[in-house]
Amino acid sequence: MTLPIRILGIDPGLRRTGWGVIDVDASRLIFVACGSVATDESAAIAERLLAIHAGLSRVVDQHDPAESAVEATFVNKDAAATLKLGQARGIALLVPAQAGLRVAEYAPNLVKKTIVGAGHCEKAQIRMMVGMLLPKADPQSEDAADALAIAICHAHHRSSAVVTVGARLGL
Amino acid sequence: MTLPIRILGIDPGLRRTGWGVIDVDASRLIFVACGSVATDESAAIAERLLAIHAGLSRVVDQHDPAESAVEATFVNKDAAATLKLGQARGIALLVPAQAGLRVAEYAPNLVKKTIVGAGHCEKAQIRMMVGMLLPKADPQSEDAADALAIAICHAHHRSSAVVTVGARLGL
Repeated sequence: MTLPIRILGIDPGLRRTGWGVIDVDASRLIFVACGSVATDESAAIAERLLAIHAGLSRVVDQHDPAESAVEATFVNKDAAATLKLGQARGIALLVPAQAGLRVAEYAPNLVKKTIVGAGHCEKAQIRMMVGMLLPKADPQSEDAADALAIAICHAHHRSSAVVTVGARLGL
Repeated sequence: MTLPIRILGIDPGLRRTGWGVIDVDASRLIFVACGSVATDESAAIAERLLAIHAGLSRVVDQHDPAESAVEATFVNKDAAATLKLGQARGIALLVPAQAGLRVAEYAPNLVKKTIVGAGHCEKAQIRMMVGMLLPKADPQSEDAADALAIAICHAHHRSSAVVTVGARLGL
Protein backbone atom coordinates (compact mmCIF):
# COMPACT_ATOMS: atom_id res chain seq x y z
CA MET A 1 0.00 0.00 0.00
CA THR A 2 1.30 3.45 -0.95
CA LEU A 3 0.30 6.77 0.49
CA PRO A 4 -1.63 9.06 -1.85
CA ILE A 5 0.22 12.03 -3.37
CA ARG A 6 -1.51 15.36 -3.05
CA ILE A 7 -1.27 17.62 -6.10
CA LEU A 8 -2.07 21.32 -6.46
CA GLY A 9 -2.93 22.53 -9.97
CA ILE A 10 -2.94 26.26 -10.74
CA ASP A 11 -4.42 28.13 -13.71
CA PRO A 12 -2.93 31.62 -13.30
CA GLY A 13 -4.60 34.86 -14.35
CA LEU A 14 -4.49 38.42 -13.06
CA ARG A 15 -8.29 38.65 -12.89
CA ARG A 16 -8.91 35.11 -11.64
CA THR A 17 -6.40 32.44 -10.63
CA GLY A 18 -7.96 28.97 -10.45
CA TRP A 19 -6.66 26.27 -8.13
CA GLY A 20 -7.52 22.60 -7.68
CA VAL A 21 -6.28 19.97 -5.23
CA ILE A 22 -6.48 16.21 -5.87
CA ASP A 23 -5.03 13.10 -4.29
CA VAL A 24 -3.50 10.39 -6.48
CA ASP A 25 -3.46 6.89 -5.04
CA ALA A 26 -1.79 4.60 -7.59
CA SER A 27 -4.02 5.30 -10.61
CA ARG A 28 -7.02 6.48 -8.57
CA LEU A 29 -7.84 10.21 -8.56
CA ILE A 30 -9.61 11.72 -5.56
CA PHE A 31 -11.05 15.24 -5.52
CA VAL A 32 -10.02 17.30 -2.49
CA ALA A 33 -10.93 20.93 -3.15
CA CYS A 34 -10.95 23.66 -5.78
CA GLY A 35 -11.62 27.35 -6.07
CA SER A 36 -10.57 30.64 -7.54
CA VAL A 37 -8.76 33.73 -6.30
CA ALA A 38 -10.46 36.76 -7.81
CA THR A 39 -8.80 40.17 -7.71
CA ASP A 40 -10.25 43.66 -7.72
CA GLU A 41 -9.88 45.00 -11.28
CA SER A 42 -9.86 48.58 -10.01
CA ALA A 43 -6.87 47.90 -7.72
CA ALA A 44 -3.26 48.48 -8.73
CA ILE A 45 -1.35 45.50 -10.10
CA ALA A 46 0.90 45.15 -7.03
CA GLU A 47 -2.17 44.88 -4.83
CA ARG A 48 -3.77 42.29 -7.12
CA LEU A 49 -0.56 40.22 -7.10
CA LEU A 50 -0.55 40.46 -3.32
CA ALA A 51 -4.13 39.10 -3.24
CA ILE A 52 -3.15 36.17 -5.52
CA HIS A 53 -0.11 35.45 -3.32
CA ALA A 54 -2.20 35.56 -0.14
CA GLY A 55 -4.99 33.41 -1.65
CA LEU A 56 -2.67 30.70 -3.03
CA SER A 57 -0.61 30.71 0.19
CA ARG A 58 -3.80 29.99 2.15
CA VAL A 59 -4.57 27.07 -0.19
CA VAL A 60 -1.07 25.63 0.33
CA ASP A 61 -1.32 26.07 4.13
CA GLN A 62 -4.78 24.52 4.28
CA HIS A 63 -4.33 21.56 1.93
CA ASP A 64 -0.60 20.89 2.28
CA PRO A 65 0.05 19.57 -1.25
CA ALA A 66 3.21 17.57 -1.99
CA GLU A 67 3.58 18.62 -5.64
CA SER A 68 2.23 21.32 -7.89
CA ALA A 69 1.65 22.04 -11.56
CA VAL A 70 1.05 25.28 -13.46
CA GLU A 71 -0.21 25.76 -16.99
CA ALA A 72 2.52 27.11 -19.29
CA THR A 73 0.48 29.36 -21.52
CA PHE A 74 0.81 32.79 -23.06
CA VAL A 75 -1.30 35.18 -25.03
CA ASN A 76 0.43 35.70 -28.32
CA LYS A 77 -1.66 38.51 -29.73
CA ASP A 78 -0.96 41.23 -27.22
CA ALA A 79 2.29 42.06 -25.39
CA ALA A 80 0.50 44.00 -22.63
CA ALA A 81 -1.82 41.03 -21.92
CA THR A 82 1.13 38.62 -21.98
CA LEU A 83 3.00 40.80 -19.47
CA LYS A 84 -0.04 40.84 -17.16
CA LEU A 85 -0.44 37.08 -17.40
CA GLY A 86 3.31 36.69 -16.79
CA GLN A 87 3.04 38.68 -13.58
CA ALA A 88 0.21 36.49 -12.26
CA ARG A 89 2.09 33.41 -13.42
CA GLY A 90 5.19 34.54 -11.52
CA ILE A 91 3.16 34.46 -8.31
CA ALA A 92 1.61 31.08 -9.22
CA LEU A 93 5.11 29.60 -9.62
CA LEU A 94 6.50 31.37 -6.54
CA VAL A 95 3.96 30.25 -3.93
CA PRO A 96 4.48 26.47 -4.26
CA ALA A 97 8.25 26.97 -4.64
CA GLN A 98 8.25 28.96 -1.37
CA ALA A 99 6.62 25.94 0.29
CA GLY A 100 9.40 23.72 -1.08
CA LEU A 101 7.11 21.95 -3.58
CA ARG A 102 8.04 20.59 -6.97
CA VAL A 103 6.54 22.89 -9.62
CA ALA A 104 5.86 21.24 -12.96
CA GLU A 105 4.77 23.16 -16.05
CA TYR A 106 2.52 21.81 -18.80
CA ALA A 107 1.61 23.28 -22.17
CA PRO A 108 -2.16 23.78 -22.64
CA ASN A 109 -2.24 21.26 -25.50
CA LEU A 110 -0.73 18.54 -23.30
CA VAL A 111 -3.31 19.25 -20.60
CA LYS A 112 -6.11 18.95 -23.19
CA LYS A 113 -4.62 15.84 -24.74
CA THR A 114 -4.26 14.16 -21.36
CA ILE A 115 -7.80 14.94 -20.25
CA VAL A 116 -9.82 14.78 -23.46
CA GLY A 117 -7.50 12.82 -25.76
CA ALA A 118 -7.11 15.65 -28.27
CA GLY A 119 -4.84 18.71 -28.22
CA HIS A 120 -7.57 20.94 -29.57
CA CYS A 121 -10.95 20.82 -27.88
CA GLU A 122 -13.63 23.02 -26.41
CA LYS A 123 -13.48 24.29 -22.84
CA ALA A 124 -16.80 22.49 -22.22
CA GLN A 125 -15.20 19.13 -23.13
CA ILE A 126 -12.46 19.64 -20.55
CA ARG A 127 -15.01 20.55 -17.93
CA MET A 128 -17.10 17.45 -18.75
CA MET A 129 -14.07 15.13 -18.55
CA VAL A 130 -12.94 16.72 -15.25
CA GLY A 131 -16.46 15.94 -13.95
CA MET A 132 -16.16 12.30 -15.09
CA LEU A 133 -12.66 11.82 -13.67
CA LEU A 134 -13.49 13.61 -10.41
CA PRO A 135 -17.22 12.96 -9.80
CA LYS A 136 -17.16 14.77 -6.45
CA ALA A 137 -15.62 17.94 -7.89
CA ASP A 138 -17.88 20.97 -8.08
CA PRO A 139 -15.84 23.70 -9.79
CA GLN A 140 -17.78 26.97 -9.63
CA SER A 141 -15.71 28.59 -12.36
CA GLU A 142 -13.89 27.74 -15.57
CA ASP A 143 -10.49 28.54 -14.06
CA ALA A 144 -11.09 26.20 -11.10
CA ALA A 145 -12.05 23.42 -13.57
CA ASP A 146 -8.92 24.19 -15.63
CA ALA A 147 -6.78 24.04 -12.47
CA LEU A 148 -8.20 20.56 -11.71
CA ALA A 149 -7.40 19.55 -15.32
CA ILE A 150 -3.79 20.68 -14.79
CA ALA A 151 -3.60 18.67 -11.54
CA ILE A 152 -4.94 15.59 -13.38
CA CYS A 153 -2.41 16.16 -16.17
CA HIS A 154 0.38 16.18 -13.57
CA ALA A 155 -0.99 13.00 -11.99
CA HIS A 156 -0.47 11.29 -15.36
CA HIS A 157 2.91 12.80 -16.22
CA ARG A 158 4.52 13.42 -12.83
CA SER A 159 7.07 10.65 -13.07
CA SER A 160 8.50 12.12 -16.28
CA ALA A 161 7.85 15.83 -15.68
CA VAL A 162 10.52 18.49 -15.77
CA VAL A 163 10.25 19.95 -12.31
CA THR A 164 11.95 22.25 -9.91
CA VAL A 165 12.49 21.70 -6.24
CA GLY A 166 12.10 24.95 -4.34
CA ALA A 167 13.56 23.27 -1.29
CA ARG A 168 16.94 23.20 -3.03
CA LEU A 169 17.38 26.86 -2.14
CA GLY A 170 16.69 26.06 1.48
CA LEU A 171 13.62 28.31 1.58
CA MET B 1 13.13 70.03 9.10
CA THR B 2 11.65 66.99 7.38
CA LEU B 3 12.83 63.42 7.63
CA PRO B 4 14.29 61.95 4.45
CA ILE B 5 12.14 59.48 2.50
CA ARG B 6 13.84 56.23 1.57
CA ILE B 7 13.04 54.92 -1.91
CA LEU B 8 13.69 51.50 -3.42
CA GLY B 9 13.92 51.36 -7.23
CA ILE B 10 13.72 48.00 -9.00
CA ASP B 11 14.64 47.07 -12.58
CA PRO B 12 13.16 43.58 -12.94
CA GLY B 13 14.55 40.82 -15.12
CA LEU B 14 14.57 37.03 -14.90
CA ARG B 15 18.34 36.87 -15.43
CA ARG B 16 19.25 39.92 -13.34
CA THR B 17 17.02 42.13 -11.23
CA GLY B 18 18.66 45.44 -10.32
CA TRP B 19 17.84 47.36 -7.16
CA GLY B 20 18.84 50.76 -5.84
CA VAL B 21 18.07 52.56 -2.58
CA ILE B 22 18.26 56.35 -2.15
CA ASP B 23 17.16 58.87 0.46
CA VAL B 24 15.33 62.03 -0.61
CA ASP B 25 15.60 64.98 1.75
CA ALA B 26 13.59 67.85 0.26
CA SER B 27 15.28 68.08 -3.16
CA ARG B 28 18.53 66.47 -2.06
CA LEU B 29 19.27 62.90 -3.23
CA ILE B 30 21.50 60.67 -1.11
CA PHE B 31 22.83 57.31 -2.31
CA VAL B 32 22.27 54.45 0.15
CA ALA B 33 22.98 51.18 -1.65
CA CYS B 34 22.49 49.31 -4.91
CA GLY B 35 23.02 45.86 -6.33
CA SER B 36 21.67 43.10 -8.48
CA VAL B 37 20.02 39.73 -7.88
CA ALA B 38 21.36 37.29 -10.47
CA THR B 39 19.68 33.94 -11.06
CA ASP B 40 21.03 30.64 -12.28
CA GLU B 41 20.04 30.34 -15.95
CA SER B 42 20.14 26.56 -15.76
CA ALA B 43 17.59 26.48 -12.92
CA ALA B 44 13.83 26.12 -13.43
CA ILE B 45 11.81 29.32 -13.57
CA ALA B 46 10.08 28.74 -10.21
CA GLU B 47 13.48 28.45 -8.56
CA ARG B 48 14.75 31.63 -10.26
CA LEU B 49 11.64 33.53 -9.13
CA LEU B 50 12.25 32.23 -5.61
CA ALA B 51 15.82 33.60 -5.75
CA ILE B 52 14.55 37.03 -6.91
CA HIS B 53 11.94 37.03 -4.13
CA ALA B 54 14.52 36.08 -1.50
CA GLY B 55 17.07 38.64 -2.77
CA LEU B 56 14.62 41.55 -2.92
CA SER B 57 13.12 40.59 0.45
CA ARG B 58 16.62 40.80 1.97
CA VAL B 59 17.06 44.29 0.47
CA VAL B 60 13.72 45.44 1.94
CA ASP B 61 14.60 43.94 5.35
CA GLN B 62 18.07 45.47 5.36
CA HIS B 63 17.30 48.98 4.05
CA ASP B 64 13.69 49.42 5.20
CA PRO B 65 12.50 51.68 2.35
CA ALA B 66 9.29 53.71 2.73
CA GLU B 67 8.31 53.72 -0.95
CA SER B 68 9.21 51.79 -4.07
CA ALA B 69 9.15 52.16 -7.84
CA VAL B 70 9.36 49.59 -10.63
CA GLU B 71 9.99 50.15 -14.33
CA ALA B 72 6.89 49.44 -16.44
CA THR B 73 8.50 47.97 -19.50
CA PHE B 74 7.83 45.10 -21.86
CA VAL B 75 9.53 43.43 -24.75
CA ASN B 76 7.27 43.81 -27.74
CA LYS B 77 9.02 41.57 -30.20
CA ASP B 78 8.68 38.23 -28.47
CA ALA B 79 5.77 36.85 -26.44
CA ALA B 80 7.94 34.25 -24.67
CA ALA B 81 10.42 36.96 -23.56
CA THR B 82 7.57 39.21 -22.44
CA LEU B 83 6.07 36.36 -20.38
CA LYS B 84 9.45 35.75 -18.71
CA LEU B 85 9.89 39.43 -17.94
CA GLY B 86 6.31 39.55 -16.63
CA GLN B 87 7.06 36.74 -14.21
CA ALA B 88 10.11 38.53 -12.80
CA ARG B 89 8.15 41.77 -12.71
CA GLY B 90 5.37 40.07 -10.73
CA ILE B 91 7.91 39.29 -8.02
CA ALA B 92 9.36 42.84 -8.17
CA LEU B 93 5.89 44.27 -7.55
CA LEU B 94 4.98 41.68 -4.91
CA VAL B 95 7.95 42.08 -2.56
CA PRO B 96 7.48 45.79 -1.70
CA ALA B 97 3.68 45.32 -1.58
CA GLN B 98 4.17 42.49 0.95
CA ALA B 99 6.13 44.96 3.10
CA GLY B 100 3.22 47.41 2.91
CA LEU B 101 5.10 49.85 0.65
CA ARG B 102 3.67 52.11 -2.02
CA VAL B 103 4.63 50.68 -5.42
CA ALA B 104 4.79 53.22 -8.24
CA GLU B 105 5.31 52.27 -11.88
CA TYR B 106 7.10 54.40 -14.47
CA ALA B 107 7.42 53.94 -18.22
CA PRO B 108 11.03 53.69 -19.42
CA ASN B 109 10.69 56.91 -21.43
CA LEU B 110 9.62 58.88 -18.35
CA VAL B 111 12.60 57.49 -16.42
CA LYS B 112 14.95 58.58 -19.23
CA LYS B 113 13.30 61.98 -19.60
CA THR B 114 13.51 62.62 -15.86
CA ILE B 115 17.18 61.65 -15.61
CA VAL B 116 18.64 62.77 -18.95
CA GLY B 117 16.03 65.23 -20.18
CA ALA B 118 15.16 63.21 -23.28
CA GLY B 119 12.87 60.20 -23.71
CA HIS B 120 15.29 58.50 -26.08
CA CYS B 121 18.90 58.25 -25.01
CA GLU B 122 21.75 55.81 -24.69
CA LYS B 123 22.17 53.57 -21.64
CA ALA B 124 25.57 55.22 -21.09
CA GLN B 125 23.92 58.65 -20.73
CA ILE B 126 21.62 57.34 -17.98
CA ARG B 127 24.57 55.81 -16.19
CA MET B 128 26.55 59.07 -16.43
CA MET B 129 23.67 61.15 -15.08
CA VAL B 130 23.06 58.68 -12.24
CA GLY B 131 26.75 59.16 -11.38
CA MET B 132 26.35 62.95 -11.36
CA LEU B 133 23.13 62.92 -9.31
CA LEU B 134 24.45 60.31 -6.87
CA PRO B 135 28.24 60.85 -6.73
CA LYS B 136 28.71 58.17 -4.07
CA ALA B 137 26.90 55.50 -6.08
CA ASP B 138 29.01 52.70 -7.50
CA PRO B 139 26.66 50.51 -9.54
CA GLN B 140 28.51 47.39 -10.63
CA SER B 141 25.99 46.54 -13.33
CA GLU B 142 23.67 48.22 -15.81
CA ASP B 143 20.55 46.94 -14.03
CA ALA B 144 21.70 48.37 -10.68
CA ALA B 145 22.28 51.76 -12.40
CA ASP B 146 18.84 51.52 -14.03
CA ALA B 147 17.26 50.72 -10.64
CA LEU B 148 18.87 53.88 -9.19
CA ALA B 149 17.50 55.84 -12.17
CA ILE B 150 14.00 54.51 -11.39
CA ALA B 151 14.40 55.52 -7.73
CA ILE B 152 15.49 59.03 -8.81
CA CYS B 153 12.52 59.21 -11.20
CA HIS B 154 10.21 58.38 -8.30
CA ALA B 155 11.88 61.03 -6.12
CA HIS B 156 10.83 63.60 -8.75
CA HIS B 157 7.33 62.31 -9.42
CA ARG B 158 6.31 60.70 -6.14
CA SER B 159 3.79 63.36 -5.15
CA SER B 160 1.82 62.79 -8.37
CA ALA B 161 2.49 59.09 -8.96
CA VAL B 162 -0.19 56.47 -9.34
CA VAL B 163 0.61 54.13 -6.51
CA THR B 164 -0.72 51.20 -4.60
CA VAL B 165 -0.61 50.67 -0.89
CA GLY B 166 0.02 47.04 -0.07
CA ALA B 167 -0.83 47.74 3.54
CA ARG B 168 -4.47 48.23 2.52
CA LEU B 169 -4.84 44.47 2.39
CA GLY B 170 -3.51 44.20 5.93
CA LEU B 171 -0.57 42.04 4.86
